[in-house]
Amino acid sequence: MPLGDRGGDKSEARFCGVETEFSDDIPEVITFNLSTGKFDFVVAPLTDPSYRPSLVPKNSFGSAAPPFAGSDLVLSPSQWSSHVVGKISSWIDLDSEDETVRIDSETTLRQELAWASHLSLQACLLPAPKGSTCANYARCVNQILQDLSNMQLWLRIPLVLHDDDVTSTDSNSATLVDSWETWNSFRLLCEHHSQLSVALDILSTLPSANSLGRWFGESVRAAIVNTDSFLTNGRGYPCLSKRHQMLITRFFNYNIQIIISGNSGHAKASVGVVDSRSGADSQRHPLRPYLEYVGHLYQKLDPLPEQERFELGYRDYLQSPLQPLMDNLEARTYETFEKDAMKYIQYQRAVSKAMLDMIPDNEASVKTLVLMVVGAGRGPLVRASLQASEETGRKLKVYAVEKNPNAVVTLHALVRLEGWEDTVTIVSCDMRYWNAPEKADILVSELLGSFGDNELSPECLDGAQRFLKPGGISIPSSYTSFIQPVTASKLYNDVKAHKDISHFETAYVVKIHNAARLAPCQSVFTFTHPKPADDRESNERYKKLHFTLPNDTGSAMVHGFAGYFDATLYKDVHLGIEPLTATPNMFSWFSIFFPLRTPICVKPGSKLEVDFWRCCGPKKVWYEWCVTSPSPSPIHNSNGRSYWPLLITVRSRKRLNLR
Amino acid sequence: MPLGDRGGDKSEARFCGVETEFSDDIPEVITFNLSTGKFDFVVAPLTDPSYRPSLVPKNSFGSAAPPFAGSDLVLSPSQWSSHVVGKISSWIDLDSEDETVRIDSETTLRQELAWASHLSLQACLLPAPKGSTCANYARCVNQILQDLSNMQLWLRIPLVLHDDDVTSTDSNSATLVDSWETWNSFRLLCEHHSQLSVALDILSTLPSANSLGRWFGESVRAAIVNTDSFLTNGRGYPCLSKRHQMLITRFFNYNIQIIISGNSGHAKASVGVVDSRSGADSQRHPLRPYLEYVGHLYQKLDPLPEQERFELGYRDYLQSPLQPLMDNLEARTYETFEKDAMKYIQYQRAVSKAMLDMIPDNEASVKTLVLMVVGAGRGPLVRASLQASEETGRKLKVYAVEKNPNAVVTLHALVRLEGWEDTVTIVSCDMRYWNAPEKADILVSELLGSFGDNELSPECLDGAQRFLKPGGISIPSSYTSFIQPVTASKLYNDVKAHKDISHFETAYVVKIHNAARLAPCQSVFTFTHPKPADDRESNERYKKLHFTLPNDTGSAMVHGFAGYFDATLYKDVHLGIEPLTATPNMFSWFSIFFPLRTPICVKPGSKLEVDFWRCCGPKKVWYEWCVTSPSPSPIHNSNGRSYWPLLITVRSRKRLNLR
Repeated sequence: MPLGDRGGDKSEARFCGVETEFSDDIPEVITFNLSTGKFDFVVAPLTDPSYRPSLVPKNSFGSAAPPFAGSDLVLSPSQWSSHVVGKISSWIDLDSEDETVRIDSETTLRQELAWASHLSLQACLLPAPKGSTCANYARCVNQILQDLSNMQLWLRIPLVLHDDDVTSTDSNSATLVDSWETWNSFRLLCEHHSQLSVALDILSTLPSANSLGRWFGESVRAAIVNTDSFLTNGRGYPCLSKRHQMLITRFFNYNIQIIISGNSGHAKASVGVVDSRSGADSQRHPLRPYLEYVGHLYQKLDPLPEQERFELGYRDYLQSPLQPLMDNLEARTYETFEKDAMKYIQYQRAVSKAMLDMIPDNEASVKTLVLMVVGAGRGPLVRASLQASEETGRKLKVYAVEKNPNAVVTLHALVRLEGWEDTVTIVSCDMRYWNAPEKADILVSELLGSFGDNELSPECLDGAQRFLKPGGISIPSSYTSFIQPVTASKLYNDVKAHKDISHFETAYVVKIHNAARLAPCQSVFTFTHPKPADDRESNERYKKLHFTLPNDTGSAMVHGFAGYFDATLYKDVHLGIEPLTATPNMFSWFSIFFPLRTPICVKPGSKLEVDFWRCCGPKKVWYEWCVTSPSPSPIHNSNGRSYWPLLITVRSRKRLNLR
Repeated sequence: MPLGDRGGDKSEARFCGVETEFSDDIPEVITFNLSTGKFDFVVAPLTDPSYRPSLVPKNSFGSAAPPFAGSDLVLSPSQWSSHVVGKISSWIDLDSEDETVRIDSETTLRQELAWASHLSLQACLLPAPKGSTCANYARCVNQILQDLSNMQLWLRIPLVLHDDDVTSTDSNSATLVDSWETWNSFRLLCEHHSQLSVALDILSTLPSANSLGRWFGESVRAAIVNTDSFLTNGRGYPCLSKRHQMLITRFFNYNIQIIISGNSGHAKASVGVVDSRSGADSQRHPLRPYLEYVGHLYQKLDPLPEQERFELGYRDYLQSPLQPLMDNLEARTYETFEKDAMKYIQYQRAVSKAMLDMIPDNEASVKTLVLMVVGAGRGPLVRASLQASEETGRKLKVYAVEKNPNAVVTLHALVRLEGWEDTVTIVSCDMRYWNAPEKADILVSELLGSFGDNELSPECLDGAQRFLKPGGISIPSSYTSFIQPVTASKLYNDVKAHKDISHFETAYVVKIHNAARLAPCQSVFTFTHPKPADDRESNERYKKLHFTLPNDTGSAMVHGFAGYFDATLYKDVHLGIEPLTATPNMFSWFSIFFPLRTPICVKPGSKLEVDFWRCCGPKKVWYEWCVTSPSPSPIHNSNGRSYWPLLITVRSRKRLNLR
């Protein structure tokens, strides 16, 4: 029975499981935990825990099957698959120095996973690696992963980081216990295999927030909450600490399933008191109060805001610059973007401030400003400008320059409809080739990409600048791109699935969700308009950035960089998606993701040094990027061999009439 | 004029160059240095060193060419190509914080390399990176490398390692200056590009031997020896210290060209005294005494031993396990291997000792031992066994088991020719299916691969063991494989050129030459025959190895592992290729090379931990390997997906009748 029903949310996190002991009567296990206990699934051992292959007499070899918990006859494959996560024997230790234990462990792991595959289980829980090394465990799991059909393997990892040593710069310190390192070794040995993920064991003490944050960029599927981690509330019921509650809530938002584990240790949980909240049968399953508490946390979640509901389908979905999707959605695309009210409010504010600065009160009735909207589309910036004129009482003459002839048709209709014929002149022309009849006081444009300049706004505005009066104003007056390092194993795996280098040398537009932002953003490239007189001719840029991860993070994996922009429209009026200063309720831009071909592990105390270039050739503009510290990566996208921004959207292609 | 003529050696190292100053009369530069000076080529600047693009007046842009040293009209392209290595302006600094310097440097680098390409130069010398970072320099060079036809780029790197800090475990120490790190960053940023190599600047002090050793695994093309590094001998002539002499000699052996650089600073070099050694015209070129000294070192080289001459063509040539070459060379292959006298001498010694142990003197005339040669081929081990019998006066009855029917024909002819009919029985049969008429006292085989067990000797001998008497002897009685980490950029690049993962998950037979052996060998897998009664059934193995690089090495790149074997034939008689204990004058085996998909940089003080597995499935046997520290690599060759030893040679395929 799902934990609750949150509007629009179809997350797996609605389902809650329970870890059980071995029983050879698996139908009874299901009945007790699902019907009586109201859990959604069980995490149940597949084999009798006392079984050891080496203790089976040699002569019975090949005849006797291992003591499995139940066959596909007592429970149908579809029941197995929907109700049971297989729990691999927890005694196994594939890196034991005792060779008998090691070989017994290998045999058992293979037998159980083969059996789980036979039963079509959706997932199996692998016990946590026991020692400081896990190479042989990873080798066997990796071998099995090569041929596994759909089953997920959840590696159990206790959520442990001993904080006492994280400020030390000596990363070889033997006393620093960070279970993330175990996970990291294991998944590197298994090459980020997409069917290998994590089940976190939540203990009563939690590591620091920065350290916890790393896990939200990893492939975590489940969180196992031990009953020992629960406190007892005033009424004798189990509850969780504030920090634990926040963590569970965050798990819900990241689609991570909760599994209750352990014995009932709370008065009101273990004694069979009839509970008015949950009905009479709650007394029968000792862990039901824990489930109800988790359900309570789920039901307390705020409903998803409309914008997030809209974006849900785009979460972590890489938009490839080569997909021609937008070609056919042109009119709808205009319509979607025009709905972004916040964006046009900011433009209107900027135009208002600029007009007030250019025309003092006493000249308001006599002076008319020339304003040109370059890239007018279906007219939203024209409307914003005219509203600014009305709001300020300053007079305006508007040129709306647009090269898409279809949009120009709509513009003409709009002007007639609104009665703007005396104020607005429509110019059906490429801004670069337009022979303007007069010069503008104000140039308004919105040519920004997720990374600011990546849709070639600098190149377009350089062309338009020739019809701006000296002292004239460009809105936006400048824009800056930002990046920050992220752990984002899902994005990395999606890029890797293409099995070529060029996809790793491409920047993607994506609503980044399943990611850990490891350090605050830093600015990359800035462009100012109109271009200052002393500026270099070139729009090439080079920036070297140094990131430092917070000391209590522990080691972390950098899969790439999340990119954003912030634009100054005019003076204090800005527009942007840089997380700390993002304009609220704006949905026109997702962030951008620059992947790394080989993820880079950053240890505590070591610096992350990154170089970004914006390169301009005679026919194209592109980015190159690399990491130089802690260890040098290859330079990505040399000569723009894999990706150049001109291809990023059809919009920019249309603008510059290329390809 | 080449430095000398060493029998069989066609190495580039015979040619010696000289670094010159800028001159706009390049024909005169060539005449003076090549005709008068007897150098083989010049390393000459291509552009006037005072040229700066930013100082060229804007209005002359596009009309005036940069001040190049000479055009393709004063010297033909073939003269340019054979006599000149282009020296890129040494003032350039592409990572300067001064943007004008940086952009001037980028422009100059591009102009000069484009010009050098136009002249079809074979190589250009790039100046050493100036600061602690080289990202932008590497980015520009990498861009140029993407489109470069055949020209080599030699990055100048001073041979510097300040020893004072190498014992510190703090690898972030700012006072540790190791120029190898600069090279390593540069080539990682440029992805090990095969046209990017090193020109080492040899200074008057040299780093430690271990530190120097790293360079012999790197792509070093030239060594620039400054005249300041020379001493003056008793007669006033330039000479080099003992360590410098050894280094130059090693350069010769690694095909590295010497370039003399600097001013003449020695009495007998600068004054125009007629020198009896070199003729009257030596007085005209001030650096000629230095050239003569280098020539003297070259002529002092020992002539190449015959075995090395034979192996010259195989140096660093990866033998792919998939190449069917040996299929057609079967008879010749037998012939080649039979010439390896040392191998058969060792077998004869082993058989002799075993016979003496099995038959005391007083039984010599009455007892006859049964000896079986399994895999007899064309009979060399039969011969060795019979010679042992003669040498010891012990009697022998020999079975020669061979499954190649062509070799059996030769065996019959041999037996007739030698009159062995009474002693030797030829069995044309697969040893695994042979129904032996009696059991053997001694089982002789040679089924060893470069890595010992990699041609499936264990599996073959398990099959043959059933016809060995209890207490019988197997020759060999055991064998062990060994590995050591190596820097081997050439091998790495050759594997990388295939552009797929499976070539990185393959072990290659190769005469490893251009490599740095970073730590002593360690043993991996051991097999003993006959198999001890208490042995596990399986021939699977797992070994974890810890390597420590010598403290004074500095950081080093591990491109993979060189593998060897050593076999105990009987008691103290062994046979093997492990470098420290290798049997001399034996050429039957080259070493084996296990590559790493991503080379791993090992810093001073950090340990290198490596795991190797030998895995056995129902139909195949294969290795898997990985690095777990300093950072985990993927597990290579999971499930034998890319490579399994059965394919390594036709020999093993034939033996087991597979595929």
